Amino acid sequence: MGTTQLETVPEPKYWHLKTVLSDALDSEFAVGEILPNERDLAARFGVARATLRQALEQLELEGRLQRRRGVGTTVAPPRVGVAVDPVRHTWPGAAGDDWQPVDATETASVPAAVARLLETSPGQPVHVVRRNRVTHGQPVAAELLYVPCATFPEGAGPATGAATASSSGQGRARAVLRALQGLSLEGQDRTVELGSARADDAKQLDRLPGAPVLVVTTRYFAGGRTAAVAVSTYRADTCRLTFGDSESPVAALAG
Amino acid sequence: MGTTQLETVPEPKYWHLKTVLSDALDSEFAVGEILPNERDLAARFGVARATLRQALEQLELEGRLQRRRGVGTTVAPPRVGVAVDPVRHTWPGAAGDDWQPVDATETASVPAAVARLLETSPGQPVHVVRRNRVTHGQPVAAELLYVPCATFPEGAGPATGAATASSSGQGRARAVLRALQGLSLEGQDRTVELGSARADDAKQLDRLPGAPVLVVTTRYFAGGRTAAVAVSTYRADTCRLTFGDSESPVAALAG
Repeated sequence: MGTTQLETVPEPKYWHLKTVLSDALDSEFAVGEILPNERDLAARFGVARATLRQALEQLELEGRLQRRRGVGTTVAPPRVGVAVDPVRHTWPGAAGDDWQPVDATETASVPAAVARLLETSPGQPVHVVRRNRVTHGQPVAAELLYVPCATFPEGAGPATGAATASSSGQGRARAVLRALQGLSLEGQDRTVELGSARADDAKQLDRLPGAPVLVVTTRYFAGGRTAAVAVSTYRADTCRLTFGDSESPVAALAG
Repeated sequence: MGTTQLETVPEPKYWHLKTVLSDALDSEFAVGEILPNERDLAARFGVARATLRQALEQLELEGRLQRRRGVGTTVAPPRVGVAVDPVRHTWPGAAGDDWQPVDATETASVPAAVARLLETSPGQPVHVVRRNRVTHGQPVAAELLYVPCATFPEGAGPATGAATASSSGQGRARAVLRALQGLSLEGQDRTVELGSARADDAKQLDRLPGAPVLVVTTRYFAGGRTAAVAVSTYRADTCRLTFGDSESPVAALAG
C-alpha cells in the first residue's frame, strides 16, 4: 500500500487514493469495522483532508463504505441483490409479491411526469398506494403506485367503503391491489435511473433526504392502455437490482 | 415561487429549496439555459451559499442540471432512454448491436469480482474487449467485456494472428466478438447498481473520474457455464436504462 506515488500519477489524486484505500479495505478491514478518523487517515496517506474526503465519497458511492452520524465511517457489507423481475411480478399485490402495503389515498393531483405516463388529464382521480419493500429485515425500497380510478371498469374498482377514509390506510391499499388482480395484465416495461430520495421516501429507507437512490419506474398495461405506474425508490448504497432468468444473484462489481 | 417559508418547514432547508428550484426550472428556464450565479441565486432565495450548493447537487443527481467547467450551471435536457434489453441483445457483437469495438487485450489478471463471476482460477487467460456505446452522437456507455480463452472450444477461438499485438486493437476486438457468434447462448442475467466512473471510462464518457454512473453487469451463459461477463458503465446524468417489451421509452420520473 504505497503512499509515495501519489504525486506522480496522471489521475486526480483523490482517485488514486480511492484505489489505494479500496485495496486496503480488502486486505486490512472487516465488514462493519470503523475506519480511523479523517485526520489519521489523511496523515497516513500524506494527503490533504479535502482529498481524503473526496476519496471517501467515491467509496461511499460504490457501496464500500457507510457513513453514519455518531458512528463514523464503517466498512459496508456487500450490496444485497434485489430482484426487479417481470417474470415474478405480475400485478402489484399478486401472490409472492414482497412489498408491504402501507397506505392509500385518492387524489386528483399527481406529479406531471406520472400524469404523462398514465395519459390522464388534469383533475382525473387516481389511487395512490404506498408500499415498502423489506429484505433480510432491512428497508430496501419505498414505492408509490398510481392507479387511475378509470383503470377499473364500472363496478370492478375497489369497494367504495374500502377506499374511503373510514377504513385503515392498509385496508384501502389492499382493496386497490385486490381490484388490480381482477384485470388482465397485457405487458409491462420499466426504466432505471439515478435519483435523490424524496423526504418521505428517505424516512422509510432510513436515509437523509437527497441521498442517491435508484428509481425504477414500471408501467403496467391492461385494456390497451397504461393501467398503473409504480415509482419505486431503492437504496443505492445497499442494493443492486437484479434482472433476468438466473436465480443466483451476481456479486457486486462496482468500482 | 415563495421564499419566505424556508424557515418553517420540517424538511432540511436544502431539500425544500430544491423543490422550489425544480419548479422554477420548469416554469422559468429553457433547456440549455445558464442559471444565474450562486451568489445571485442564494440572495434571491434568502439562503446561505452552502444550502444553495446542496440543492444544486441534488438537482444534478436527478439529471435536472449540468455543471460544466468554464460554462456554469445549465438546465439539462431530458435523460435519454437507453435500451438494456435481453431480447435485442444476444451475443455482444451480434447484428443490430449498437456498441463500437475499440480494443482488445489478453490478460491473466482480471478484477477479483469479475474472476468470481467467470469462475476462473487466477492466472487463466481472459480476452478483454473494450467497447463504447454512442446514442444520438453522445457517448453514453463504456464497456469491458471479459471472455475467458477457455470459453472457446479448441480451434473455435479468435484466430491466433487476429488476437496478437500485430493486428489493430479494433481488429482483435472484432475477432473475439466474431468467435462468440459461433457459440450457442443459453441465457443471460444482469444487475444494475450505482458506481463511480473509473478514470479510463470517465475519459470515454466525457466525465470526471468518480462521477456517478450506473454499472450494468451482464453474465452470458453457454456450454453450461459463464462464458462471458460484460461490465458496462452508463452515464447516470444523461441516461435512463429501459427494460421490457415496450418500444416507447418511458419519460423521466426522477425527483
